[in-house]
Amino acid sequence: MQKHISSTEIMNMEKQERVHFINSLGGFKSVSLLGTTNNNGQTNLAIFSSIFHIGANPPLIAVVFRPSPPERDSLRNILETGFYTINHINENIYKQAHQTSARYDADISEFDATNLTPEYKNNFKAPFVKESNIQLGVEFKEKIDITINNTIMIIGEIKKVYFPENCLCEDGFLDLEKANTITCSGLDSYHKTIKISRLSYAKPDKAITSIT
Amino acid sequence: MQKHISSTEIMNMEKQERVHFINSLGGFKSVSLLGTTNNNGQTNLAIFSSIFHIGANPPLIAVVFRPSPPERDSLRNILETGFYTINHINENIYKQAHQTSARYDADISEFDATNLTPEYKNNFKAPFVKESNIQLGVEFKEKIDITINNTIMIIGEIKKVYFPENCLCEDGFLDLEKANTITCSGLDSYHKTIKISRLSYAKPDKAITSIT
Repeated sequence: MQKHISSTEIMNMEKQERVHFINSLGGFKSVSLLGTTNNNGQTNLAIFSSIFHIGANPPLIAVVFRPSPPERDSLRNILETGFYTINHINENIYKQAHQTSARYDADISEFDATNLTPEYKNNFKAPFVKESNIQLGVEFKEKIDITINNTIMIIGEIKKVYFPENCLCEDGFLDLEKANTITCSGLDSYHKTIKISRLSYAKPDKAITSIT
Repeated sequence: MQKHISSTEIMNMEKQERVHFINSLGGFKSVSLLGTTNNNGQTNLAIFSSIFHIGANPPLIAVVFRPSPPERDSLRNILETGFYTINHINENIYKQAHQTSARYDADISEFDATNLTPEYKNNFKAPFVKESNIQLGVEFKEKIDITINNTIMIIGEIKKVYFPENCLCEDGFLDLEKANTITCSGLDSYHKTIKISRLSYAKPDKAITSIT
């Protein structure tokens, strides 16, 4: 049975109910751990489901931050150091990843609190998550204020990519499922995936075919 | 075996290889059909994997458009009429959904070309996709030019939501997996999901528990 909810009913929902409902509507989401440090070496780790592709040339990726206050440590560290990491989440670490969303005091690193391991390599300024199978090193490029609801979008350029070698396909496609990357929906629901198919490039006069 | 690819190697990739690779890095993505019409009633339907949640109060959702040219019919229709629909994709229609990405002539509607059914209801100005299980009616709010790579972000307010009644949980969470919504990765890979768990709200001094 199809149900219809209108704008007025959405605005009349109890706040937490609306947050759950609206967060579900955009579909399945990318979910990753954002690793940062400040200039004193104090690390921070936070889970984000608002990360998305912006362009391939140059390779740009964006993340949306909710309004401050409270203080957004990850955002402050990105602006202070200019670098951050994006680390895919797999089933082995999703509970620890979710736990990073707790409001720890500023002097506690979520790496320590959740038993995830900061990994520094190749002179990259920000800490990767050792337990993550796909790790991106990103350089801050631009901050866009979304004034309609006081959120902030941060755009960065992907400078380094670490991934399991056997997950890279010949045409450049990286098989996230093979790397055990998971997805999420709403605020707190985590999901594995089962590939249906990759599809051929669509042309008006040609039938779509499965390419793997 | 972990492999490392640097910025230089990314920029040296052949163009199509880089597009596949970088589009994979953001993780699993929302994938939906965007339905529009112009003021003469000519409909358009296009698949997007760049749709994301911006905020719950008011309920805002955003989509990123690649640079023009070519002409972006969906974008032009949104700016002309002020309304559009976002329709989740399920396994029954994913090939038709993918086929909407072919470059049809401007006088051909992708609804006709792919045998998907435009559905008008409750006086909403834009066509929904009848075969979609979760349908959003959205009103245009703001256009943001992302100058770093000439992409355009469109922010809209969710005005109407249609969904299967049995997919709504008590706390407001909408069970997308139960509604058969699928996800995608890269440019052309489609995936079903298997729920791992929903997790409790995280607090510093409390262990995470599964809530369903």
